[in-house]
Amino acid sequence: MRDLKAAVVGTGFMGSTHTEALRRLGIAVVGILGSSPEKSRRAAAAEGIPRGYETYHDLLTDEEVQVVHITTPNYLHFSQARAALEAGKHVLCEKPLAMTSEETRQLVILAEETGLVAGVNYNLRFYPLNIEARDIIERGDLGEVTSIFGSYVQDWLLYPSDYNWRVLPEKGGELRAIADIGTHWLDLVQVITSLKVEAVLADLQTVHHTRQRPIGEVETFSGKLKREEATDTIEIETEDAGAVLLRFENGVRGSLWVSQTTAGRKNCLRYEIAGSQRALAWNSEMPNELWNGHRDRANESLHRDPSLLSDAARAYATYPGGHNEGYDDTFKQSFKAFYSYVAAGDDSAPKPFATFIDGHEEVLLCEAILESHQEERWVEL
Amino acid sequence: MRDLKAAVVGTGFMGSTHTEALRRLGIAVVGILGSSPEKSRRAAAAEGIPRGYETYHDLLTDEEVQVVHITTPNYLHFSQARAALEAGKHVLCEKPLAMTSEETRQLVILAEETGLVAGVNYNLRFYPLNIEARDIIERGDLGEVTSIFGSYVQDWLLYPSDYNWRVLPEKGGELRAIADIGTHWLDLVQVITSLKVEAVLADLQTVHHTRQRPIGEVETFSGKLKREEATDTIEIETEDAGAVLLRFENGVRGSLWVSQTTAGRKNCLRYEIAGSQRALAWNSEMPNELWNGHRDRANESLHRDPSLLSDAARAYATYPGGHNEGYDDTFKQSFKAFYSYVAAGDDSAPKPFATFIDGHEEVLLCEAILESHQEERWVEL
Amino acid sequence: MRDLKAAVVGTGFMGSTHTEALRRLGIAVVGILGSSPEKSRRAAAAEGIPRGYETYHDLLTDEEVQVVHITTPNYLHFSQARAALEAGKHVLCEKPLAMTSEETRQLVILAEETGLVAGVNYNLRFYPLNIEARDIIERGDLGEVTSIFGSYVQDWLLYPSDYNWRVLPEKGGELRAIADIGTHWLDLVQVITSLKVEAVLADLQTVHHTRQRPIGEVETFSGKLKREEATDTIEIETEDAGAVLLRFENGVRGSLWVSQTTAGRKNCLRYEIAGSQRALAWNSEMPNELWNGHRDRANESLHRDPSLLSDAARAYATYPGGHNEGYDDTFKQSFKAFYSYVAAGDDSAPKPFATFIDGHEEVLLCEAILESHQEERWVEL
Amino acid sequence: MRDLKAAVVGTGFMGSTHTEALRRLGIAVVGILGSSPEKSRRAAAAEGIPRGYETYHDLLTDEEVQVVHITTPNYLHFSQARAALEAGKHVLCEKPLAMTSEETRQLVILAEETGLVAGVNYNLRFYPLNIEARDIIERGDLGEVTSIFGSYVQDWLLYPSDYNWRVLPEKGGELRAIADIGTHWLDLVQVITSLKVEAVLADLQTVHHTRQRPIGEVETFSGKLKREEATDTIEIETEDAGAVLLRFENGVRGSLWVSQTTAGRKNCLRYEIAGSQRALAWNSEMPNELWNGHRDRANESLHRDPSLLSDAARAYATYPGGHNEGYDDTFKQSFKAFYSYVAAGDDSAPKPFATFIDGHEEVLLCEAILESHQEERWVEL
Repeated sequence: MRDLKAAVVGTGFMGSTHTEALRRLGIAVVGILGSSPEKSRRAAAAEGIPRGYETYHDLLTDEEVQVVHITTPNYLHFSQARAALEAGKHVLCEKPLAMTSEETRQLVILAEETGLVAGVNYNLRFYPLNIEARDIIERGDLGEVTSIFGSYVQDWLLYPSDYNWRVLPEKGGELRAIADIGTHWLDLVQVITSLKVEAVLADLQTVHHTRQRPIGEVETFSGKLKREEATDTIEIETEDAGAVLLRFENGVRGSLWVSQTTAGRKNCLRYEIAGSQRALAWNSEMPNELWNGHRDRANESLHRDPSLLSDAARAYATYPGGHNEGYDDTFKQSFKAFYSYVAAGDDSAPKPFATFIDGHEEVLLCEAILESHQEERWVEL
Repeated sequence: MRDLKAAVVGTGFMGSTHTEALRRLGIAVVGILGSSPEKSRRAAAAEGIPRGYETYHDLLTDEEVQVVHITTPNYLHFSQARAALEAGKHVLCEKPLAMTSEETRQLVILAEETGLVAGVNYNLRFYPLNIEARDIIERGDLGEVTSIFGSYVQDWLLYPSDYNWRVLPEKGGELRAIADIGTHWLDLVQVITSLKVEAVLADLQTVHHTRQRPIGEVETFSGKLKREEATDTIEIETEDAGAVLLRFENGVRGSLWVSQTTAGRKNCLRYEIAGSQRALAWNSEMPNELWNGHRDRANESLHRDPSLLSDAARAYATYPGGHNEGYDDTFKQSFKAFYSYVAAGDDSAPKPFATFIDGHEEVLLCEAILESHQEERWVEL
Repeated sequence: MRDLKAAVVGTGFMGSTHTEALRRLGIAVVGILGSSPEKSRRAAAAEGIPRGYETYHDLLTDEEVQVVHITTPNYLHFSQARAALEAGKHVLCEKPLAMTSEETRQLVILAEETGLVAGVNYNLRFYPLNIEARDIIERGDLGEVTSIFGSYVQDWLLYPSDYNWRVLPEKGGELRAIADIGTHWLDLVQVITSLKVEAVLADLQTVHHTRQRPIGEVETFSGKLKREEATDTIEIETEDAGAVLLRFENGVRGSLWVSQTTAGRKNCLRYEIAGSQRALAWNSEMPNELWNGHRDRANESLHRDPSLLSDAARAYATYPGGHNEGYDDTFKQSFKAFYSYVAAGDDSAPKPFATFIDGHEEVLLCEAILESHQEERWVEL
Repeated sequence: MRDLKAAVVGTGFMGSTHTEALRRLGIAVVGILGSSPEKSRRAAAAEGIPRGYETYHDLLTDEEVQVVHITTPNYLHFSQARAALEAGKHVLCEKPLAMTSEETRQLVILAEETGLVAGVNYNLRFYPLNIEARDIIERGDLGEVTSIFGSYVQDWLLYPSDYNWRVLPEKGGELRAIADIGTHWLDLVQVITSLKVEAVLADLQTVHHTRQRPIGEVETFSGKLKREEATDTIEIETEDAGAVLLRFENGVRGSLWVSQTTAGRKNCLRYEIAGSQRALAWNSEMPNELWNGHRDRANESLHRDPSLLSDAARAYATYPGGHNEGYDDTFKQSFKAFYSYVAAGDDSAPKPFATFIDGHEEVLLCEAILESHQEERWVEL
């Protein structure tokens, strides 16, 4: 795994997060590409990365690079992922995989044709207790899953003065809160329960119909620290919040609430999965505890303690119980899964990470949600 | 207030709860009525109540009784409330006020005509921190309310062997989980935010299509302790769980999740109300804390400490901070509000409790939810 | 039990708490005594109690009264309890039983001689989960107890402007924080574990060496709401905080921290009892949950749900799980235990409440703690 | 900072933790030393480190190495730290710095003489919210500190079958629980409050007087996963638990409870610092929240959100609020502080990490605690 070498596309918050996680694994990041040669150089210097590429072409022709990490704004994912595959590189792309299901369909086919390893970084799957939740269900301890409800709530776009490229349809896509964070929840609960969503009914809400855009660039999550600056007023069409009713396989019902305008919730994904014998609940702001609800005995709070985890979950837990792991550790574990798979070189093995097919299905789900909202009716997948 | 005298209809869990709360206030319960003279006598003896009535007529002609508390199964509320008003008694009725909006409409008119005080016991309004939440919003500290989401989740009907009269449409109504607990949530968030629901879209779920009915009677909540006994199998049409999308006044959006089949959640009502400046969250299983979410400063957890509450909330908090109050205290406070109003004798004063009009509106809301579910579309109120 | 009649001595916060709890049980409070005839009359009128006595003698000669509840400042307990026993009344006295072990010893003997039922209101024993904790240990699920640590922390005497009769040695005793709240903790953990303290080593701290005393009277806990008023400066010798090292029977070790000057902790008693197989933790500000710590499986949070409790604990839990009970419910349950015992009339039965012997032992413990602090050494009991 | 190169001594859990954290910062680990050449080679291969040294001499003569990380059992720290300084290497040593204050005194002098940068890895200081706590106190928001209490509790040595070199005085020192985890607490609260401990009174407890030692080696924390294996019985003299009363400067009082035999607490450090205006509490098992207790307003829960932190704390927080950081992040931040200091090359700057002087003072504190326990009296520092 440590013989593989990576390059990162994107110099924002997510780019740094990828670089740091790769280094923890002892995987070298040999180059980085920004939105301009100058930005590439600055990022390379700041992070101690050997090469700051002039162009994406330079990156793709760097023979040392075997894996390309795509962490750019959403509208660039399609072309960059396609080009990387065409250049013979393995690809780990930030979510969403692309802007439309037409694009993601092409990428799925291309990945298949090239035989390269192609993943989408649904990192939340790699919280050890989410793996444990999946295992609890797989081994039947929950009984039959009956319902799934939850939410993903943040506050970083609370004020009309909060701005980021994600609020623009042309940069982030027609859906925003749902696509940006809701899809994490949808991916997670489907993986944990092994149940696919079959129909959706959504009601979306744009709280701020205009926002103030700073003149100049804005880093994701950095707005909360921003200084006074010149702005212009832009119209907003993407949603700040929304609710989605869900029908899963086997008659299982669910409900998802998403908001980026709820003060005090910093990055709060919650799910509650009810089964015929037990229920599970988890909160991303306290990720080292998994609640197990019981009817006939005391409820349990399972720590992320390797000695208490299933084999599957323990494989992704580095530190002893009580030694909290966090958000950044999910990147390390996600990449460990991806690079181990690449290193093993066995295409027939089941993939322990989200594939382009998963990324494609998430985009289909988003399109159904948008259609449902616009037409005020159930839409099947 | 202590000059008023009460009679209680119903000898179940809820009847005892009413009696105990009345006594805390120093209000005498002079008589009780069960579903048979024998049951009346037994309940009177068990609780130390002077009279166990033979018939409802005996209760209604007891001149000492000024207030009738109705705690019987839902299908009896209408006729009992009507008769009590016709007999010149004030009425405090458990929710729902009746089975259909046609019935509740008649009761509203009758209450108006008689000039008697007529309330529905939405006791959750009387948790001091719910009053505080309302006050926070009224004084503008939340800014504009933007969204409301939450849930009410229990586990006492988890198993197909769990049974209670509430599962039968003819005893409890065509809606069950929504009507039984969902309406508490709907009442609460509308009162706290002063926003009315304008449209609903529901998706309901019957987890167990049959249940085992014990041959003999079953007390609400007592099933979890029950012994082996003979049962028969009955078909179930009422919902065990369900989701409702909500559109409130002023474009405010919301979502409610209800379940009586989620293991480990005993009686868990949660709401999360987002505003343009702050958010509020509360959980009925930890009712002495109100979460205040902030964007620009640390989140707050407000204790139910009289020295920290608004005047409005402090009026309903008896004990100092840290001396927890609970479920039973809400009955005491609810009755204090009701009896103080009766004692004051001023019809023109605003009513500090849920009225028959509120009870009527809740039934309208339930009817809209059922229609929406059946027709799979938005239904306006 | 409902044939017994009570009188209450003391018109403060604690007096009202007793009256309300008695009424919940259907036990009549026939009279009340304040520190003046005028205060007695006012309290009787405010609470709807038939008689406001002129003198304690009037109360003691009231033939209807069978049980006397003593809720006055500590320095009055001895003479009032003695007189009540001598008048042939059963006594339920607020803690501490008296100011010195010489006094409590006399009361123990007198109670024995008269054969009357004599209890001290250690109400915290009656939180159902504390009874459950005791049961868990008795049935061996904890293994051998190895250590006990915890704290009792409040904030109502945080500021030098906070004042109450308890800060004065002549009214409250030479120890204050330890005696007022520390003794609750000491009583509780000894009852739960069935282990007696054998030696203590204390270090006490007076944070404010002077306080401002309002000219006029001050109700316990009411200071936090007080208005501007005239004060004089008094010297303070009683402790605001303190730590006690504890040696229990069987080599078990422990540690207690007490403070009445910790901002934000309203009334927070915490214990953590470690055993050879399991540990237990409980927090009085979240009294409906009992933490069970495990090494080899997930930790548990046991709800105060009757269907999950032992028989012993269930007997003192009125409401279903999730329907929180609180501080005031412990008075109801404590009085239920006391009055049931009186009503049963069987002296040979084990007493389910704290007796005068328990009250005596607590005063001995306080004296040892004070001596240990003054001499900076271990003191044995 | 990234020009500096490190070598790690020790191939256990702590060694890997150091290597991973260094890599996150982009600092190269060029070599590693185990307890045998074979172990060095195996560790180097497993972690992808260029060199596995034959001997410590080889490491010390590796000219590329500028910083030596010492992560071996305690009894080796003194000689290894001394040799590293003598070889002209900067040293970052795991705690405790050495086994006796005579040794630590020598190391302090040697560090001073050589002018090399010499730190002890009290990593818990680097949780951003602990830095925030210090800042809150420094800027006066707590008022005057009045008391400090807390605990550090684990369960990994609960059973007599749990074994690790730390239980042996000759490998770990005469104190164990206090030295191993208690010192983390003592270091932390002294740094946060800027108050030194002036006197101690301890009572220590050995729960298991014998333990089963596996024949073969045992990794710290790995015991909980261990398989059946041969053992021998050894006598245990080091403490499993203990309590320490504390007198700090300015009359501030405190109390510490330590245990490694409390089931269910995995690695739980808690402190509660009371001041004249506010209180602070923190729990290492929920390290992303800092409780701020208030008397006159709602209590606060401060998230580790860079936009809410002081400048001092924000410098050590990498990820946005709600994106939890954990135990491993403290190593990254600790090393960032250390290496930045080395890179800056300015000896006159205040050191942002724990120095050998701090390490020396902790050993003095341990010696006083042991003496106090043995003599059952207060011991001054």
